[in-house]
Parts: sequence; C-alpha cells; structure tokens
Amino acid sequence: MSLLKVVPLGGLGEFGMNCLALQYDDDIIVIDAGMMFPEAELLGVDIVTPDFTFLEENQEKVRGLILTHGHEDHIGAVPFLLSQIGIPVYGTAFTLALVERRLEEHEMLAEADLRRVKPGDRVELGPFKIEFIHVTHSIVSCVALAITTPLGVVLHTGDFKVDPTPTDNILFDLHSLAEYGKRGVLLLLSDSTNVDRAGYTPSERAVQPRLQEIFNRAERRIVISCFSSSIHRLQQILDLSAEMGRKVAFLGRSMLSCTEIAHNLGLLTIHDNLLLRPQDIMSTPPSKTVVVASGTQGEPMSAMSRIAVDNHKNISLERGDTVVLSARQIPGNERPISRMLNHVAKRGADVVVGAMNPPVHVSGHASAEELKLVLNLVRPRYFVPIHGEYWQMSKHAALASHLHSQGLEETYVLETGQTLEIDHHGARRGERVTVGRICIDSGTIDEVVEDMVIRDRRHLSEDGFVIPIIAIDKHTGKSEGLPEIVSRGFVSLDETSELMQGARQIVARTLEVSSEEERTDWGVMQEKIRADLKRYLNKQTQRRPLIMPVILEV
Amino acid sequence: MSLLKVVPLGGLGEFGMNCLALQYDDDIIVIDAGMMFPEAELLGVDIVTPDFTFLEENQEKVRGLILTHGHEDHIGAVPFLLSQIGIPVYGTAFTLALVERRLEEHEMLAEADLRRVKPGDRVELGPFKIEFIHVTHSIVSCVALAITTPLGVVLHTGDFKVDPTPTDNILFDLHSLAEYGKRGVLLLLSDSTNVDRAGYTPSERAVQPRLQEIFNRAERRIVISCFSSSIHRLQQILDLSAEMGRKVAFLGRSMLSCTEIAHNLGLLTIHDNLLLRPQDIMSTPPSKTVVVASGTQGEPMSAMSRIAVDNHKNISLERGDTVVLSARQIPGNERPISRMLNHVAKRGADVVVGAMNPPVHVSGHASAEELKLVLNLVRPRYFVPIHGEYWQMSKHAALASHLHSQGLEETYVLETGQTLEIDHHGARRGERVTVGRICIDSGTIDEVVEDMVIRDRRHLSEDGFVIPIIAIDKHTGKSEGLPEIVSRGFVSLDETSELMQGARQIVARTLEVSSEEERTDWGVMQEKIRADLKRYLNKQTQRRPLIMPVILEV
Repeated sequence: MSLLKVVPLGGLGEFGMNCLALQYDDDIIVIDAGMMFPEAELLGVDIVTPDFTFLEENQEKVRGLILTHGHEDHIGAVPFLLSQIGIPVYGTAFTLALVERRLEEHEMLAEADLRRVKPGDRVELGPFKIEFIHVTHSIVSCVALAITTPLGVVLHTGDFKVDPTPTDNILFDLHSLAEYGKRGVLLLLSDSTNVDRAGYTPSERAVQPRLQEIFNRAERRIVISCFSSSIHRLQQILDLSAEMGRKVAFLGRSMLSCTEIAHNLGLLTIHDNLLLRPQDIMSTPPSKTVVVASGTQGEPMSAMSRIAVDNHKNISLERGDTVVLSARQIPGNERPISRMLNHVAKRGADVVVGAMNPPVHVSGHASAEELKLVLNLVRPRYFVPIHGEYWQMSKHAALASHLHSQGLEETYVLETGQTLEIDHHGARRGERVTVGRICIDSGTIDEVVEDMVIRDRRHLSEDGFVIPIIAIDKHTGKSEGLPEIVSRGFVSLDETSELMQGARQIVARTLEVSSEEERTDWGVMQEKIRADLKRYLNKQTQRRPLIMPVILEV
Repeated sequence: MSLLKVVPLGGLGEFGMNCLALQYDDDIIVIDAGMMFPEAELLGVDIVTPDFTFLEENQEKVRGLILTHGHEDHIGAVPFLLSQIGIPVYGTAFTLALVERRLEEHEMLAEADLRRVKPGDRVELGPFKIEFIHVTHSIVSCVALAITTPLGVVLHTGDFKVDPTPTDNILFDLHSLAEYGKRGVLLLLSDSTNVDRAGYTPSERAVQPRLQEIFNRAERRIVISCFSSSIHRLQQILDLSAEMGRKVAFLGRSMLSCTEIAHNLGLLTIHDNLLLRPQDIMSTPPSKTVVVASGTQGEPMSAMSRIAVDNHKNISLERGDTVVLSARQIPGNERPISRMLNHVAKRGADVVVGAMNPPVHVSGHASAEELKLVLNLVRPRYFVPIHGEYWQMSKHAALASHLHSQGLEETYVLETGQTLEIDHHGARRGERVTVGRICIDSGTIDEVVEDMVIRDRRHLSEDGFVIPIIAIDKHTGKSEGLPEIVSRGFVSLDETSELMQGARQIVARTLEVSSEEERTDWGVMQEKIRADLKRYLNKQTQRRPLIMPVILEV
C-alpha cells in the first residue's frame, strides 16, 4: 500500500536550518536546505547544517530540492547538500540568484542544475505535482508550495506574513490558498516563528512614518544598515531618498550584490541619477546623501562595523550624522551590536535603533491572527506546525484546535527526525530517522568539526587544561625526576606556586604507589594520574580543568 | 580651592556593576556597588565586579556606601567592596535585607555596619548631606539621592521609572525633586537604560489585564515565574489569587527568602489562609492553586528549570496547566530559557511569555518622556547621564539639549574611569582613574580570574591547543627521537594522521636547523618551534590553536 512520509530534517524544535523531505513510495522531494548560525556554545564553529544522511542513503530516490525563499536558514546549506547528492534545484529567480552566489563561493556553480520557477508554475517530480504560490515575507519572491500527491494535497507555507499592503503591491495569493482549501487539503505545514505574538504583524510599510521622520529631521548624512536581502526595505529607502532629494550609496559586498541582483531582475526600482558611487560620498553635501550599509549584527568585517570605527575608505562619520539600525538584533549578537553603536555615538552621530516606537524594523513572520487566517482558509485534515521551538509549535497546534469541527482530524507536533506517515487509513507518527547538526569551522565544505572537538573546546573554555608530563626511562622503566606540569586557562600558576608543587607531588606519588604491572600499562597509568590529579585540583580550586597526562619514553 | 570630583567606577558605558564615588577634598562617599553577570565571552567566569583600586588607595577618606536599591547590579559587589574596605552601608530596610543575605553567604554579616534609612531621612557624612527621596522602579524601596555639598546639590536618580499608579500606591516623590530643582541643582546624574524607548514606560499595573485573563481562562494549575525581588508583581499575583479563590505556593530559595523579607517588613501583604505549603501542591485541586517559582532565566538548578524537566519534589506539571514567564529575557539567556519552555510544552502545559501583547512583564526603567520630566523638574546646571551603554548615554544627553535655555551649562557623557571635576569656576573633565572588571570564578571572594587566563580560555575555546613535547638528553644536549605532540579541541587528530606526522617533522626540522647556541637557550627554541608550527598548522588548517612547546630535560 502506498505511503506518504513527512521527514523533518531540520527546523522543527530548533531555530534555523530548515529542511524537510516528503517521500511517496520510491520518490523523495526536499523542501529547503537551510543553515543555522551556531549558538555561542558551539565554540569556534562558523556554520551549522542539517545532517543529510537520510537523503544520502536514499539518494537514488531524491528527485529535487524545492526552495521557498532566499533567506540563509532556507538556502544556506544548499552547497553542502549538493556536494553530497547532485539533484536539480527549483526556486524563484531571486532565490536562485542568491543560491548562485553561495555556489560560486564554493566553486560549484558550473555543475549545479538550477531551474527557475515563478508563482503559478507547476512542476512534476515523480508522483509530486508542485504548484508555487506567492506569499509575502521580509524578502521578495517567496512562495508557498501546494504539493499534490496521490493521497492528497500537502500545503507548505514556507515563511510568511500576510502583509495587506506590501511595498511591491504583489499581494499574498490568498485566492489559491482558498481554492486548495475548498477542494480539500490533506496536510498543512505552517510557519510558527511568531505564534506568541497576538494580533497581526504590521505591514512592511509600517516603517515608513519613522523613516520619513528621520529624513525630515536629519540635517546631515543618513547612514542606514539593514539586511541586504530586505528588498522591500531598500525600495522604501530609495523612494524616500528620491523624494527628499538625497542620493544613495550602497556599501558592503552583500549589499552591492543583492541590490544588483534585485535590480537586474526588476525587483528593485532605482530612480535615474539616484545612485552615488561610494568614492563620491564625502564630496557630496551631507544633507544630500544616504548611505546604505550591510552589517546589522555588528559582524567585525562588515561595512557598518568598519564605518563605526572610522575604518571605511569611503566614509567618515561626522558630528550630527544619523545612523539607523533597521533590523532585528539576533539573540546572541547584542554585545557586538552595542559595541558598534557605542563607536558610532562616540563619533557624534545620532543612533536610531529598531526598538524605538514607531518602528524602523518590522518582523516578516505572521502573528497569531494571520496564522489562524491561513488555518481557516486551508482547513486541512492534518496539521503539522513547522519552523520554531517546540513550545512555539505547541502554541501553534493549540491555535488550530477550533478546526476540529471543520474537518481537522489531528495535529502533530513533530521534532526534527520524527517522521509522520500517511496512507489510506490516515496519519500516524512513523519511525525516527537519523538527523543532527553538522558543524563547519570555516565556510569550506570539508571542515566538519566533530562533536568531540566541540566538547573539548567547551571544557577548555571553562577551566582550561592541565597536562602532567612524565618522562620514563625506557631502559629502567622508572620516571626521571619530578613530573613537569603545563597548564593554560586554568588559574594563574607559576612554577613555584604551592598548587603546582602540590600537583607534581600528587603525580609522583601516584607513580610510586602503583604496582609494577600497572606501571607498564600506560593507559592505566594515565587514567590513575588523571583521577588523582582531578581530585586534588578540584579540592584545591573547585575547578575541573581538562587533564591529559602524557607519558614519554626517553 | 575646594574641588568636587565625580568618579564613575562602573556602569557608565557598560551594562551593570553600577558604582560611583563622589569626592569633596578629603572625603569620599560611594553610591552603589553592583555586579555584572559576565558576557558569554568571559569564559567560565561567574561574577564580574568593578575594580575598587581607587577606593582602596583612598580608603582613609571613604565615609560610607549609599545604596539606591536592592538589584544585583547595584548591591551585588557589596561583599567584595567590604572585604577590601570596612565602611558603613546605608540603605532602605528592604535593600539592606537583601545585602544581609549576600553577606551571610560570605560569612561577613557579623562585622558589617549596616545603617537603615527611609525616604525623607537625612544623613551627614563629612561635607555630604544626603537626603533619600522615594522613587518607583520594578523593585520596592528605591531611593534617589539629593546630596548637598558645599558647592551645590548633586542629584542621583538611582534606577527609576515614573509609575503613576504603583501597586503600593506610594508615588514617586516628584515634589522633593521639584523642590530641589527650584532651589537649584548643581549636577544631575540620571538613569539612561531605556532612553531609546519613546513615550512612557507602562505602569507596573499594566500586567494586570493579562494576568487576569490568564486566571480567567486557566482551568488547571497556574505556575508563574518572575524575579523574586519583584515585590510589586508578587503582590498583584497574590491579590488576584485571593480574588479568584486560588492558594499560592512559593518555590525556590530566593523566592522564599525574598517574600519572607518583604512580608516581615510589611512590604508584601499576604491574605489569611492564602499560602499553600509546597508539599501540599499536588494534593490541592489544580484549579485552586497558583505556584510562584524563581528561575526566570532558565538557571539550571532553579525551581522553574527543575519543574520544567519534572525534577521538582513538590510539583509535577500536567496537561492543561499554564506556565507564565513574567520577566524580561536577559540577552544571552535566550537558549536556556527556550530549552526550559520546550520542556514545559512537552509536558502538555500552555506557555505564556512576556513578549505577548498585552504584556505579562513591563520594564522598570523610565522611557524618554519620563526622563525629560525629571530633567525639566531638576533643571540642573550640569548633567551626566549614567547607567547605560555609551550610545544610550549620548541619546540621553541629546534629550537634555532644550534645557540650555533653562540654565543647563553643559552635559558630559562620561565613561567608567573618566572623572568630572567641579569647583567655583565650573565643571570640566578630570583625570582618568584606575578602573576595570574583576572576574570571579565561583562566588567566593578569593577567586579572582586574571585577564590572561580568560584570554587563554577564549583562545582555547576557538581552536583548542597543540603541545609539542621535546625530550632533550641533559648529557648530550640532543633531542631523543621524534617529538611528541598532544592536542585537544583543535581538529580530530590521530597519531598516524598526515597532519600530525607533518607537525612532528616540522618540530624536528626546527631543532635540526638551529645553531648550537640557540639550542642551549630553551626560551629561543620554544619561540622558534611555536612560530614554525603555527605557520605550518595555519597553512594546513586555517586555524590557530594555542601552541605551547614543552622542552623536557631527561
């Protein structure tokens, strides 16, 4: 009997690295392949991607990768997935252009098979018939997916909000959603990010009054930092600048490439003679310029960070300039952002951040009332909340409870790795598949960091290390003199400190009291020394450094 | 000529560890001695306090410590300061009770000289006449300080908001502020924490509609976690519980001690028969109970964290229970808080967090309009914004600019360590004094962590360590065999890996090509080996582990 399997590979019960596979018998499609910016506790790790083992093990079944939009948590792992399995990638023009940029960095663009789609298009991949439906979000060219399978329609919202007044006037395609809902939807998968916010998320246009006020008040240069993919935001800044007679310069690699991509695709309208070359910023009257820079999160090498410390070749902040941070502060980045703003303030510029009311930033994710609207339009038989922490998906599940009278049979709160199976009898939780996080140290594909290395780094970061070194004469089997001890990051130890002398005595004693037999087994000796030293150091200092005895045969 | 010096020792241009000294000739008073919770980058550090060197060097001049209120960022370093200089401590009853708790933990209570004051009281310390003025904030019993010196009045606001409807109906004493303003204030020091918020901070009572709704809707047990010192919040929860016929149990050590202190001081009204003993929670009908637990930030051993993972002896969450997080999520704590909420959701309880609208938490700090009100009432001759990042203090300075027509001569944005001097001619920036952060590893007073140790930990946390060990025969001066290399947290290396073999060859080569003279100087050899190995490893792996060559004479 035929079986539809929903296989979440990332983003359910965690924030970021969204990836989900749908399997119908011997065919699989993958929806999104995102990355996650590592938590602070993943020390030294730069990028985290899902573990694609499930897809690798089933690679002859995988028909393609479908992308809903171009944010990093949906496309950031595409190079890593494609390096493991070569499959065609479907997405809108803007989404694919952002993917191309990433593939180029990894020198993988030549062999990639990218297939451009637009809202309303239908693609057939084995038993899956996929229709792309336009939705509104903080990035342009986003789609939801209506995936018709022999068992019924699976509707995947991607990320969205229901913006009633999008800046490009391309409305969320509620009609298509309604149409599918009318005909019957088997399963809805819907974005849970902002489920804890009551009411409606403000339209992207809500930032306009505040930007207007800033433009009205600013007598000198305006520097705005926003996400380079926020084309809606950039369009508003461009329009306002044109209206107010200011020229606009873009600064930062990603800002330059994103605006170029969007402009080439006709997604960003740039008025004639509006643009200012970066090298002309300082020679143009401050009251006639706007600078748009990437680096909203205080990234050390970004344009905005370099501007803040007066280390950008094209601009030097001056007293009376206005610096606007038009972006969300991603948790964990508060310190670098604060540091950047402090530097800006020290240069005498006025700082405007998103927290202020009215806002210079609004969220791109649907609040509770919008989520209910989508639930009510789609009226699915089964519902699986996606994209969020477990508690957010649970809240989203609760939002759907009134639909039980409208045909909703069951809501499943799944976590990454927990599959759902649907056949002619209905849906049930299936087996767990292998999932996990792959930690990557520097942007390259090879450098996977193993969990053990990260565990060691965490341990080292808390209490440092202590390494006792014992030289053993290979002829006599006896140790030579008192053991050496080296240590870093533990406590300030000098050679002569009591603690250090005590530690050396402990190691020497352990050697002494061990039997001849133990002493010939270095593994045993290392373990004994580690245990004794750990007890001693912990008692003396209440700390637990990483202890790693080294026995040298000399 | 007589000189008044303002000496910020903490909290100006940084968040937390507020401490400021006022010196008039040979007399010094200290206002607050707070701690800072360490940033994630201070690896393994538990507490950060200001460097009190300035006070130690002038200890015969220091007349006393004045506390504005009982939050940790104002009192947390009191034990550390008192262990260095024995001075009397002035504060309101509630503030001192919280200080006593801390001193007891350090077994310092017996020798402490704590002097209780109340709003309206005046204390004379050398040339300083200090009047305590009641202000509203998220904790009870807060005061501003009007400090009369021979040169004029210094007004220090402490932390505050202007709550028009405080839950205890004790209003912010605007009259006293106005009175001082009318008579003339030399210098205003005012809280900048929320300067970027427009309008007014909502009254503490603003959480009531939301709490009311939660109580109305909840059919089963309600568990609320809030800061244990938020007596206003606790009073509202108690009142609502009494009204709705629910009994209240307090859980968590700090929750039990804070409520006991507040109750004993008459600051918290507990209705008859309202309290429920923790051991009776599970035997009371769920619809008749409210549990108030400490641990809003997901602290691992806190009551709330233990409840979340069903590891609390007095309560087990059940499907349909409601868990409310009525507190701010302090930046950096998002992960542990999210993890805690996920566990709560998995146990089937409904999660309500502060982000929702209407709020279950409001800030205790004044927004822009309240800050202007205080500026306008006080009309100081000089103004120094305090408590905030540099960019926030800059914004606060800009808020005062309209007062130049009202007698404001100058605003100074100072950072910790930057003094201000005032004499009969007026004010000017003075010299810098020694300031800094003292990092403390575990709550005890002795365990100061030096910067070098933290730098090492950071380095270790990013790329781990590599230690080449060279055994040199003390008779021949030659090295014995190939060097050993031990490493952790770097990359997964096994003995036989190419990288490891290459590294050993590099070290051996460095030894070979060194001159006889170099080889006898171990310092030189260590440096050469470090440099060569660093170059090699960086080229092979793009990483920079901590490299620490060890030369053993055997």
